[in-house]
Amino acid sequence: MQPQRDPRGLWLLLLSLFLLLFEVARAARPVVSCPAACLCASNILSCSKQQLPNVPHSLPSYTALLDLSHNNLSRLRAEWTPTRLIHLQSLLLSHNHLNFISSEAFSPVPNLRYLDLSSNQLRTLDEFLFSELQALEVLLLYNNHIMAVDRCAFDDMTQLQKLYLSQNQISRFPLELVKEGAKLPKLTLLDLSSNKLKNLPLPDLQKLPAWVKNGLYLHNNPLHCDCELYQLFSHWQYRQLSSVMDFQEDLYCMSSKKLHNVFNLSFLNCSEYKERAWEAHLGDTLTIKCDTKQQGMTKVWVTPSNERVLDEVANSTVTVSKDGSLHFQQVQVEDGGVYTCYAMGEAFNETLSVELKVYNFTLHGHHDTLNTAYTTLVGCILSVVLVLIYLYLTPCRCWCRGVEKPSSHQGDSLSSSMLSTTPNHDPMAGGDKDDGFDRRVAFLEPAGPGQGQNGKLKPGNTLPVPEATGKGQRRMSDPESVSSVFSDTPIVV
Amino acid sequence: MQPQRDPRGLWLLLLSLFLLLFEVARAARPVVSCPAACLCASNILSCSKQQLPNVPHSLPSYTALLDLSHNNLSRLRAEWTPTRLIHLQSLLLSHNHLNFISSEAFSPVPNLRYLDLSSNQLRTLDEFLFSELQALEVLLLYNNHIMAVDRCAFDDMTQLQKLYLSQNQISRFPLELVKEGAKLPKLTLLDLSSNKLKNLPLPDLQKLPAWVKNGLYLHNNPLHCDCELYQLFSHWQYRQLSSVMDFQEDLYCMSSKKLHNVFNLSFLNCSEYKERAWEAHLGDTLTIKCDTKQQGMTKVWVTPSNERVLDEVANSTVTVSKDGSLHFQQVQVEDGGVYTCYAMGEAFNETLSVELKVYNFTLHGHHDTLNTAYTTLVGCILSVVLVLIYLYLTPCRCWCRGVEKPSSHQGDSLSSSMLSTTPNHDPMAGGDKDDGFDRRVAFLEPAGPGQGQNGKLKPGNTLPVPEATGKGQRRMSDPESVSSVFSDTPIVV
Repeated sequence: MQPQRDPRGLWLLLLSLFLLLFEVARAARPVVSCPAACLCASNILSCSKQQLPNVPHSLPSYTALLDLSHNNLSRLRAEWTPTRLIHLQSLLLSHNHLNFISSEAFSPVPNLRYLDLSSNQLRTLDEFLFSELQALEVLLLYNNHIMAVDRCAFDDMTQLQKLYLSQNQISRFPLELVKEGAKLPKLTLLDLSSNKLKNLPLPDLQKLPAWVKNGLYLHNNPLHCDCELYQLFSHWQYRQLSSVMDFQEDLYCMSSKKLHNVFNLSFLNCSEYKERAWEAHLGDTLTIKCDTKQQGMTKVWVTPSNERVLDEVANSTVTVSKDGSLHFQQVQVEDGGVYTCYAMGEAFNETLSVELKVYNFTLHGHHDTLNTAYTTLVGCILSVVLVLIYLYLTPCRCWCRGVEKPSSHQGDSLSSSMLSTTPNHDPMAGGDKDDGFDRRVAFLEPAGPGQGQNGKLKPGNTLPVPEATGKGQRRMSDPESVSSVFSDTPIVV
Repeated sequence: MQPQRDPRGLWLLLLSLFLLLFEVARAARPVVSCPAACLCASNILSCSKQQLPNVPHSLPSYTALLDLSHNNLSRLRAEWTPTRLIHLQSLLLSHNHLNFISSEAFSPVPNLRYLDLSSNQLRTLDEFLFSELQALEVLLLYNNHIMAVDRCAFDDMTQLQKLYLSQNQISRFPLELVKEGAKLPKLTLLDLSSNKLKNLPLPDLQKLPAWVKNGLYLHNNPLHCDCELYQLFSHWQYRQLSSVMDFQEDLYCMSSKKLHNVFNLSFLNCSEYKERAWEAHLGDTLTIKCDTKQQGMTKVWVTPSNERVLDEVANSTVTVSKDGSLHFQQVQVEDGGVYTCYAMGEAFNETLSVELKVYNFTLHGHHDTLNTAYTTLVGCILSVVLVLIYLYLTPCRCWCRGVEKPSSHQGDSLSSSMLSTTPNHDPMAGGDKDDGFDRRVAFLEPAGPGQGQNGKLKPGNTLPVPEATGKGQRRMSDPESVSSVFSDTPIVV
């Protein structure tokens, strides 16, 4: 008798074979080719103006430029591309209707360098939205409906050089992002023009290096009119910074619900802007930056007597440090005059002149070098010592009497002296007054009224500490001498 | 009597005043602002999809990106912008109807780095058309109607890195442009896909460094099917070059008016492609390139015994030269084996293995080191010397007879010997035969059949001359050993 064949087994075998064949065919399938709606030129996919409601499926993995501009895309989801596009460098999504971008949308494109999201309908930039784009250099977000920018939206974008946010509804922007050495260390262009910015952290802006200010566009905003604003932009105008020079007529401010050009604020009677000289005193240590409009320029300094300042020379009072700054070890009267910095860059050269005035006396000769912290500390220690003397080194007869109640008295007097730094007047210890001693602890106060707060400025210090080089000094190009209460707090416009 | 006022004078004065005021107003006028059809974000002008028949007039001089894509432009004249746009870096003119570009059109934009002329109606690329664009890095010309490309169209474009010419009608292209050190020294991507190329200068293509071949896209062309073409692309496939790996299914060739995939030419019975080892003989000088897919990689060589080859060490037979090549001073038998080059780049790393076979005998030990030029020269000099001996050093009795007609004989014999390098058999000098001397000049021929042509290979030569290292040697990665009759002539596909 022949064994009965199980028809189910045969079917399963056939199905397995079919699946295997299908899998083999799928594996041997060519690399994903050009999507129907696109024009493909080797690694470029141009799918522009095709009325696409979605990103085409199955994009080739070798794509370097993907142009999806002028389509009908409204959402960029996390799974917009099933394959990782590690070669993608440019993604053009402008002129769509994008109103949502998933926080994971950019995970598949980690090497993107240019992202165009302009002319869409984005409303917010959430935190960590672009954090995956650690190689991104240019981000175009102009002409959207952006109102809120999260402080962490641009976290980890260490390569970002240009950020365009013009023509949005932004009323607050975390300007601390552009601080030197901050979250966006390479940012040379930040376009915040044509938004709704009203207040700017002016002292912080003035402190920025010229190469940041040169690309910080703030025109067409309803800024609040005041003389500080006028002085800020007058300085930028004096320095011929592009952000002001190219848009002088569009730099507005608002006063009494009227728009005024920032350079035409006669009703405020602001004093004319004047570039000021640096001031120093005999023996000061001083560092003057060559604050150029571009990063990475080669800098050469020339003295008032037309001699080149050398980089690092022993026994020389004036040298050029590695970052191109002029450094005075101990300023002398004959160091005064106009110093010139010649900066050579790839695109253009720049010449900066800085005047230095040296006063013929030291700043610290007639004043104490004590500051408040120091005097308080000394006063405190002195009072403790006096209290201890009062407690332990009184004549022997006190010792004899003190044996009766030593612990409670010592504890009281110590704690009260630590808090009030005055002698113990506890009425409970009244018996002590009877011995005829009048013990008082005196405070040691700084001698001068105000000038005594320059304790950090030590003549002969080899480190350049420009922030602490005396009240009389002012910078010509670099405004770091302007103090600010916001300097250590997040800045939000 | 009052003086008569001249009304004409008054009018002239008023007119002058008016003109002066107008001039002052014009001078104080703001920098040219945003054109009506465009969207402006600081230095970006986006005038895309506005049905513009012409470029807007008066573009701001600070413009860095000008987007004129998806408009109706048909001609780009010399005067398309009245002002020089020295800051313009990107000019987007794709999706227009451009059929004419003036040879002076790019004079006002000397610093352009990115030019998109794709999807237009251009038919020819005339000589020096892009010569003003000496800073251009990327040029997009795909999807036009280009049939002819002048050999000088891309002259002076020393910074060009990417050139897209896909989807045109090109049947001949001057491929000598991409030769190493040629007119386009930085070109890493040349897209000639989807054109009408039929014949390629295959030996010249094979000689190109891998970083050029990696970006040389030739798919979708009706190439002529033959085994040399198959071998070429098989080698590129073995090297995993992007230009072949990404478009394997689109690499066609044409035979008998039918299209075939280049890797499926069974009807031609081509031999399988095999990567061959380098071959050398005892004492040879040898240079093996680390032929990477990317330029400017850091290269490290490791010997068959897993030791790192050092850069420049005295008394070492194998060193790594400055360009990352492996250099053998005098090959020994024990040098044979598989050498590995580890190349580290910005985007990716690469590992290349090269096998070296060393034969246990010198190539020149049993053969002469003479070559044709050398033997011909020696033969020539010898024949001249013999002729001179024949003329001047014959026994004294000849001198006595020779006095009768010396000048005509000397001249004849010298000229004939210089041309024929054989003794003078001039019947006019027949009298000489009578003296009983049988004078013959013998040619000195190379002893070996063929191997004698290796005269350039001098053991102990310190300069790497890989092109002349013997017939038996073959390169694994670099195909410079393939000879070509086209190598010194312009290559036109």
